[in-house]
Amino acid sequence: MTVVGDVRVGLLGCGNVGAALARVVDEHADLITARAGARVVITRVAVRDVTRARDVKLPTSVFTDDAAGVVADPEVDIVVEVIGGVEPARALIEAALRAHKPVVTANKELIARDGPELFRIAAEHGVDLLFEASVAGGIPLLRPLRESLAGDRIRRVLGIVNGTTNYILTRMAEDGASFADALAEAQRLGYAEADPTADVEGFDAAAKAAIIATIAFGAPVGPDDVFREGITQVTDDDMRSARSLGYVVKLLAVAEEVGGEISVRVHPAMVPVHHPLAAVRDSFNAVFIEADAVGELMLYGRGAGGNPTASAVLGDLVDAARNLVGGARGATFGELVGKPIRPVGDVESPFYVLMEVADRPGVLHAISGEFARFGVSIKSMEQRGAGDDARLVFITHRAREADMVATLDALRHVDVVHRVGSVIRVVGEDD
Amino acid sequence: MTVVGDVRVGLLGCGNVGAALARVVDEHADLITARAGARVVITRVAVRDVTRARDVKLPTSVFTDDAAGVVADPEVDIVVEVIGGVEPARALIEAALRAHKPVVTANKELIARDGPELFRIAAEHGVDLLFEASVAGGIPLLRPLRESLAGDRIRRVLGIVNGTTNYILTRMAEDGASFADALAEAQRLGYAEADPTADVEGFDAAAKAAIIATIAFGAPVGPDDVFREGITQVTDDDMRSARSLGYVVKLLAVAEEVGGEISVRVHPAMVPVHHPLAAVRDSFNAVFIEADAVGELMLYGRGAGGNPTASAVLGDLVDAARNLVGGARGATFGELVGKPIRPVGDVESPFYVLMEVADRPGVLHAISGEFARFGVSIKSMEQRGAGDDARLVFITHRAREADMVATLDALRHVDVVHRVGSVIRVVGEDD
Repeated sequence: MTVVGDVRVGLLGCGNVGAALARVVDEHADLITARAGARVVITRVAVRDVTRARDVKLPTSVFTDDAAGVVADPEVDIVVEVIGGVEPARALIEAALRAHKPVVTANKELIARDGPELFRIAAEHGVDLLFEASVAGGIPLLRPLRESLAGDRIRRVLGIVNGTTNYILTRMAEDGASFADALAEAQRLGYAEADPTADVEGFDAAAKAAIIATIAFGAPVGPDDVFREGITQVTDDDMRSARSLGYVVKLLAVAEEVGGEISVRVHPAMVPVHHPLAAVRDSFNAVFIEADAVGELMLYGRGAGGNPTASAVLGDLVDAARNLVGGARGATFGELVGKPIRPVGDVESPFYVLMEVADRPGVLHAISGEFARFGVSIKSMEQRGAGDDARLVFITHRAREADMVATLDALRHVDVVHRVGSVIRVVGEDD
Repeated sequence: MTVVGDVRVGLLGCGNVGAALARVVDEHADLITARAGARVVITRVAVRDVTRARDVKLPTSVFTDDAAGVVADPEVDIVVEVIGGVEPARALIEAALRAHKPVVTANKELIARDGPELFRIAAEHGVDLLFEASVAGGIPLLRPLRESLAGDRIRRVLGIVNGTTNYILTRMAEDGASFADALAEAQRLGYAEADPTADVEGFDAAAKAAIIATIAFGAPVGPDDVFREGITQVTDDDMRSARSLGYVVKLLAVAEEVGGEISVRVHPAMVPVHHPLAAVRDSFNAVFIEADAVGELMLYGRGAGGNPTASAVLGDLVDAARNLVGGARGATFGELVGKPIRPVGDVESPFYVLMEVADRPGVLHAISGEFARFGVSIKSMEQRGAGDDARLVFITHRAREADMVATLDALRHVDVVHRVGSVIRVVGEDD
């Protein structure tokens, strides 16, 4: 590939990811030139405060607080957006695409919400819109889904896509920490925000799940289509049960296509200890893909952080630059085709259920009657504790979510059941 | 993307992979058309015996025993080679490239040996030569290395790239089977060949390691540049030691760039039980990548088998078809630049060493003196068994391979050492 003139990049945002990108572009300039077929140069950087000192080797003159001006600048060939949030990112990206400038973005929130509309604008104007960094940070996920599995049919994707909650669950599982203590430690280490809601309630994972489902199944799926349950209710008792039953508790994003319907959900799950996702510890992310031809595939790595995210942005940037140099447009995901979302009540899985019960003969008989009444079949049962501390732990066979909910409602009215404690779906078991 | 005329494929070989490819192309025709921007049609298939019945939905008229004729046929736009072996595959691929026809191949042996020369011919003629399926079957590996990590600097790649040996080692570790029994079981299940040499002696992994190193470091690396040691010497005693010390034994392909030199080797390794590679069981493959920006990355899946390999071939085929339709040439790995191969004696790692010794005072003193003499530092020591069955298990700190070899040679002449048993490198530990 011959090297032509420079490809000039307008960078929107220079926080953690933007600064890391500027550093990598500088440090690996030769490598990037060889691979892109042109020198990639950051010529304009839009920031809120141009006076702030930044750890990047860029002349002060490139900084401006006029983001729209960077997008419109005739000396900017490609726009990289790492501001985050919906506006003004959305308007800036749209303006760039309409000006026929390729866009690379790491913006999970925006792509989850407005991806399909932005893809359409990019296609109309024949330019690249790349967003590998928006899901699972540095892990190459969207490109393999788009290209390597281009001829395969994806059945299901299971993802550990939130590093904060995976860190918390790892501490609970391995150190016996409570949720509160593990969260406090994650906050102390900077893994969790002061307000951890977006992570621990599964909002962050739900946005990523929506993007994964959109790409995997070629259908527009938004955050509101995702059933969502966080990890705040997971107890150390559940962790002990999981270990003794051969499971590990993980917050999973699940996206699957069943009978022409799409189901996307985020919830804690019991994952068999021998499943590759069970070995994903601390703040690492991983995405496990089940497809017709390729079988099982897992992609593992750093889901967040300045450098890993910058690495993903850079991969996209080199791609966009190479396409620009070659006068080509990169691969797209094809046109999205709407598909029905399966109601969560129709989704099937085995369930783990922990109940506080009276410790006397006949209890199991009373409880198992309710399971039977709603057609939920019990696979295993184990008593833990005795007397006032008696609890029963059930693992069911595969059951419809609606039937399980009905069973639990009924159980709450059985007098020997003092309390229905945890209910956690089992995912990843051959069944 | 608008759909133009058909892209016509000439398939060389219709064994396991070729037949699986033909089936997937048929079953997922709509998906492939949408993604490639054209219908992909297999118009010619070269086989040895045209009379043999095959489980594919292709008209008998497309079969021929004239492979060169398929390559030369003006009605063939892309050539897919799944014959395997060096010749005639090499000559056919070269002829296709010189006729400006993109080539997709799954041929590990050929690419490991003649890759750099074939890449040059492809570049000269401005056509795609894609070979994702040649390493780790269905796992997207080469495309992420080429594209997603295009701007990153790769430091080291650790791979479990041979499913047969991983299956054997898993059986030894989990069921306590001996090497011979585990091999026999692998043969019974069809995972191992009647002559298992290529797998158990590491030749298959070495070819893949050469391709990985070539792509990861942009330098021509051939099979002869790979230091190679198989798994036939791994004992159940090593497996027990590994477990008690917190390791799992894996056959690893290791490719790294250190101080401008490249080191590529295949050998059994003690992998810490918490390392993601330790969770790669049975016949699965995985490749663990360490790079500057992205940090740690692992890609996991099926390394062999008709369908997974066909999936990788198909990903390349869609890529090549899309480029053909768009009049573009796909991404390349850039020009290869020769780099020195680091002599294996200069490679450093910690070592596990098991020795049969006399069981009496002063033994450790005599042995540790030899370690000290060659500058090899001991990290831990444990006695196993007693009396005639006494063995010492050592884990060293990081040491030069040449120093370790000198230590072992010296130890063989120490009278309290009855036998130096196993020596296994430790890989993947923070040190």
